[in-house]
Amino acid sequence: METKSKEKIRNLGKGIIKQLDEKENPSITLPVRSLSNIYFDQEHRLIKIGGKTSKRHYLNVAHTKKFMQTMLVAAECKKIIDQGVTTSIRDLYYALKHTIQDTKENTFDSQGDSDPILEDLEAALNLLREELHMKADRKGYMAGQIIIEDAGDRINCAKMGSSGWGIPSDVEPEMIKFVESKAEFVLVIEKDAVWQRLNEDRFWRRHRCLIITGKGQPARGCRRLVNRLHNELNIPVYVLTDADPWGFYIYSVIKQGSINLSFLSDRLGTPDAKFIGLTSKDVPDYGIPLNVTIRLNKGDQKRIKEMIKYIWFKPKPWQQELRRMLKAGYKLELEALSSKGIRFITEKYLPRKIKNRDFLP
Amino acid sequence: METKSKEKIRNLGKGIIKQLDEKENPSITLPVRSLSNIYFDQEHRLIKIGGKTSKRHYLNVAHTKKFMQTMLVAAECKKIIDQGVTTSIRDLYYALKHTIQDTKENTFDSQGDSDPILEDLEAALNLLREELHMKADRKGYMAGQIIIEDAGDRINCAKMGSSGWGIPSDVEPEMIKFVESKAEFVLVIEKDAVWQRLNEDRFWRRHRCLIITGKGQPARGCRRLVNRLHNELNIPVYVLTDADPWGFYIYSVIKQGSINLSFLSDRLGTPDAKFIGLTSKDVPDYGIPLNVTIRLNKGDQKRIKEMIKYIWFKPKPWQQELRRMLKAGYKLELEALSSKGIRFITEKYLPRKIKNRDFLP
Repeated sequence: METKSKEKIRNLGKGIIKQLDEKENPSITLPVRSLSNIYFDQEHRLIKIGGKTSKRHYLNVAHTKKFMQTMLVAAECKKIIDQGVTTSIRDLYYALKHTIQDTKENTFDSQGDSDPILEDLEAALNLLREELHMKADRKGYMAGQIIIEDAGDRINCAKMGSSGWGIPSDVEPEMIKFVESKAEFVLVIEKDAVWQRLNEDRFWRRHRCLIITGKGQPARGCRRLVNRLHNELNIPVYVLTDADPWGFYIYSVIKQGSINLSFLSDRLGTPDAKFIGLTSKDVPDYGIPLNVTIRLNKGDQKRIKEMIKYIWFKPKPWQQELRRMLKAGYKLELEALSSKGIRFITEKYLPRKIKNRDFLP
Repeated sequence: METKSKEKIRNLGKGIIKQLDEKENPSITLPVRSLSNIYFDQEHRLIKIGGKTSKRHYLNVAHTKKFMQTMLVAAECKKIIDQGVTTSIRDLYYALKHTIQDTKENTFDSQGDSDPILEDLEAALNLLREELHMKADRKGYMAGQIIIEDAGDRINCAKMGSSGWGIPSDVEPEMIKFVESKAEFVLVIEKDAVWQRLNEDRFWRRHRCLIITGKGQPARGCRRLVNRLHNELNIPVYVLTDADPWGFYIYSVIKQGSINLSFLSDRLGTPDAKFIGLTSKDVPDYGIPLNVTIRLNKGDQKRIKEMIKYIWFKPKPWQQELRRMLKAGYKLELEALSSKGIRFITEKYLPRKIKNRDFLP
């Protein structure tokens, strides 16, 4: 992987040198990352980036600064890879920030300048930032029936106490290897508190699975891990979130990727993921008392109406759920299940959902 | 510990029954948790709660609801302990929320009602919420020269790959045991990205230490862990934060506790902790370029002037640092060290600081 990344950066540089040798105006070709070039790929069921590209020219006053910044970021990535280290995107900014000699002009004024340039490079080279040795923020934990190797250390996720294994930013095969797995499915849980409940009950032992929490919207590392687990272990992925627009959105990002990172959907998205809950239909189905539901506010209602129109919520069961929620006028959080008893979620709710294959697509 | 917690809850209940038997107006005695009852204990160098107490009476319309809520929370904690499980403070709210029969009155209207009641109980019973089997939010990681036992699983923090051990909310001796340690000090780092840099360089191996990040302001579990490591392993604690008011505040909370949780300072604070950096003085001392410093804004200046007056920033080196920062007009982030090279922090900055014992008190 390291070689591939370095080669791609080197080719980018060679291209520029060739243009200079031929007395051309040096330019970099970049995929257009705006909404006009994003589409839903029906066949692969992923949010994808289209074929439109744009050129960033050196001899164009509107492009010159960004051209220079792109070169600086690419050069720094190569330097970091050469040193065999990794760094954070904030460090990248600090390492590159300086005042250009004999001017008052800074290379970068804020991290808001360098972050999009790195995304440009990821898209242009078709590489994850982790492959460029840059780290994104990390959060999330995993426990269950798998032994992994993390940076050369063997970690048994069935023996990780109360904590689980902290999911790093870089989960590429070079860094994280799946050594041995007995897991039959992956359960991705929105909330850490619920993950901890399941971990304390050793849910993953009885049900031979992996439990993962992204602590809210999963970070890139977590989404990439889910994608790898599904594809490499060939096991299904179930997603458990609050029954509210935000929870459904989290599910949709895990499933088909996001508009922002559309150029990475094939590595971050898991189109075969299924939604296990919660739904507003669970309230009557599982006898959840109405006083632990939460009234939808104006923002929720607006968001649900938008979601009804989204192409990936077009399947009938989703249309029914969204309309039911709107009509019922309430949403609910995972913790609402606690009103039925502290172990209701691990002993009743999840086993019944899994047994009946009561999923939304 | 479990027995102690249960006994304390039981005694609380028995006290109420006794009052009822004696036809008294039932009441609960609670420490006053407002600023008027908080002080800095010069001898122990901790923010402490004073001796003032107040009574919560059942037969007082202003107290009745809170009295009922206190009883409900105490009863639920006992139930959770009896079941041998733990739960989150959000679950606690959901488990207790219901509409009181034949009324339109809810036991709790929001988690904002139940959280302070739990803190009242912690203060009244002198117990951590973890001892009441309630979990706070968790974040933070540790790596280095220690083998621990986490919920019965043995974890070698020197073999935790790129991730480290995720610090749980409950790090009481019942849950987390220190099995074997070769560490000579603890380094607490504000930022996860910097922690990852140190972990990648195996800083903890060469310098025989533990590295901990709280990912910003450390959660309770992280602060309690630092306290236990210092007291039980008898090793010094060094804190590394940004050179800005927020970083200094993080240090002060690790060191002498916080006003909010003053009733827990002896378990969450580590008065012997030392500040290793960053300081504004590092800029000339280590030749950090001025263009990676950040100009102080009005809020920073105001905050620094407040800090100059704080009793725990009275030691001369702190007064000098705060005044120097104000005069220089800049602050800086840990990542600023990257401008000197990616490994400057692990190979130059920290070793020199430790060797010269160049700490602030």
